[in-house]
Amino acid sequence: VAVSEASVITSIVAATAVRPGTAIGIDDDAAVLEPCGSVVLTHDVLAEGVHFRLPTSHRDLGWKALAVNVSDIAAMGAEPVAALVGLCLPGPDVLDIEAFYGGMEELAAETGTTVAGGDLSAGGGVVIGVTVAGRLRDDEAPLLRSGARPGDALLVTGSLGASEAGRTLLEQPDRAVGLDPGARDALLRAHHRPRPELGAARVLRDLGARALMDCSDGAVIDVGRMAVASGCGATIALDAVPRAGGVDAVARHVGMEPDLFAATAGEDYRLLAAIAPDRARRALAELPGSAVIGGFTAGSGVRTERSGAAIEVARPGYTHHV
Amino acid sequence: VAVSEASVITSIVAATAVRPGTAIGIDDDAAVLEPCGSVVLTHDVLAEGVHFRLPTSHRDLGWKALAVNVSDIAAMGAEPVAALVGLCLPGPDVLDIEAFYGGMEELAAETGTTVAGGDLSAGGGVVIGVTVAGRLRDDEAPLLRSGARPGDALLVTGSLGASEAGRTLLEQPDRAVGLDPGARDALLRAHHRPRPELGAARVLRDLGARALMDCSDGAVIDVGRMAVASGCGATIALDAVPRAGGVDAVARHVGMEPDLFAATAGEDYRLLAAIAPDRARRALAELPGSAVIGGFTAGSGVRTERSGAAIEVARPGYTHHV
Repeated sequence: VAVSEASVITSIVAATAVRPGTAIGIDDDAAVLEPCGSVVLTHDVLAEGVHFRLPTSHRDLGWKALAVNVSDIAAMGAEPVAALVGLCLPGPDVLDIEAFYGGMEELAAETGTTVAGGDLSAGGGVVIGVTVAGRLRDDEAPLLRSGARPGDALLVTGSLGASEAGRTLLEQPDRAVGLDPGARDALLRAHHRPRPELGAARVLRDLGARALMDCSDGAVIDVGRMAVASGCGATIALDAVPRAGGVDAVARHVGMEPDLFAATAGEDYRLLAAIAPDRARRALAELPGSAVIGGFTAGSGVRTERSGAAIEVARPGYTHHV
Repeated sequence: VAVSEASVITSIVAATAVRPGTAIGIDDDAAVLEPCGSVVLTHDVLAEGVHFRLPTSHRDLGWKALAVNVSDIAAMGAEPVAALVGLCLPGPDVLDIEAFYGGMEELAAETGTTVAGGDLSAGGGVVIGVTVAGRLRDDEAPLLRSGARPGDALLVTGSLGASEAGRTLLEQPDRAVGLDPGARDALLRAHHRPRPELGAARVLRDLGARALMDCSDGAVIDVGRMAVASGCGATIALDAVPRAGGVDAVARHVGMEPDLFAATAGEDYRLLAAIAPDRARRALAELPGSAVIGGFTAGSGVRTERSGAAIEVARPGYTHHV
């Protein structure tokens, strides 16, 4: 579930009802079906000109279309089982089907997912809709974004900013930013091949994380969503947000403070967790690259700080664009 | 699952693998997940200019987008539980969200389905992707299209041709066809508001139907798919195909034999069943409007007959268009 406009969600919630059999509806990362206590569903749409630009690697596109959904499954504390793929294509040669599904299958194999069906249609633009169903282990409840409590630590499972830095590089002449080829490739790869954090989700669940979500639209806006869902506030220490290598150079190139760039960049698909501080310390030891970047508080709203002083965030969220 | 081009399916099957947890993959109406023995998933795409033309009633569009998927769930012998909706919209005012979800909710309420999430994206054209998850009752296996055996009767749950006749009327000046307003409205309604046959599916399952699928692309092509999946042949008696009221007039208006029009028309979403002849007789009694329109045979291929003589079908299948 990634419907992003609140007014649209409100309309949908007003127009529809939750019925027996569905435990979690439109207000979390994925839908949970009750009959087995164990099935989790999610669906994301990727549109040409919005989420990607053709030509791009069709293998990468297949990978990413699955990855963004598997990330939602991970964010529920579940494991992916099956994916359905809906493709809308203006013509038969627009998408290399073999490369697209080949790239998707690379990630499917890594994550134990079956590409189990879908639909294909003609249409005016390239639109990719992927549904993933996942399962929860026996007797486990889904990990929602609404479980944070004041006093919980806010943990991120890895560095932020790499995907958006990679996307920025796609639009820049190479030498303008001054990155070495290795750093540049790593950023492009982060953009094209995000890696859903199923292992980190497992660790966080086992350590008793109270709330989990994936960070797709930027930490500041996504932490805000977690706080609202949990009925509390949150603080983000910009100094504590880990930044991927090369992000600082790209941020400065586009005239942004590197820490603000990282804290508001989208599509990294790291996990954000609310977890008791003592458990967070154990998570840091078990998840290299993870960091505590703030905490949840009584009240409401997200306070963004640098060296303890409040910082105004001009661009709190991330709008998908290419 | 409605990927319609064999070469594409072949590419996808070659590029992907079925893994533990998925019982039925890309080769039936919907995906079945093993963990509970009970979850069924399907996904269909509707694109502007292919499956519908704007302006149309957005309430009808919401109904139909759900209906075509619930029909796939019915065709598996399952019951719908939850729907996810992926929308790609060129602008904010292109689709009346409230009307769209309102129409969807009408059918959701009738069928016990929860609209449980989805995604929204900008994009070049209007594309609607709907996923529906359904459940099988305890200990019931899904009813596949591959279970037909030579000697089985071929049963259809109701009249055919109404939806395509309705679509034809949308393109014709009213008086040209010479239908009374009631008949015209019924055909238009059949096109805009197809009704998934969950009740008929239940009856057919209880009577021991061996194979089931929904008829979305025309009986001749869909029966052919059933026969291929079952490793047998089939015969269709055109004389026996029930035709909706007004279909004959529309068929003649477009220069087609009414029985061929009905047997090749798409989007009626009736169910096609393979069922032992004695069970078929009981089904006819329990399902008013249903008919035995042929049977399954040893060998391969579909033989289309009229009064016992073979009839060549120039247009065996249905291509979605508006």
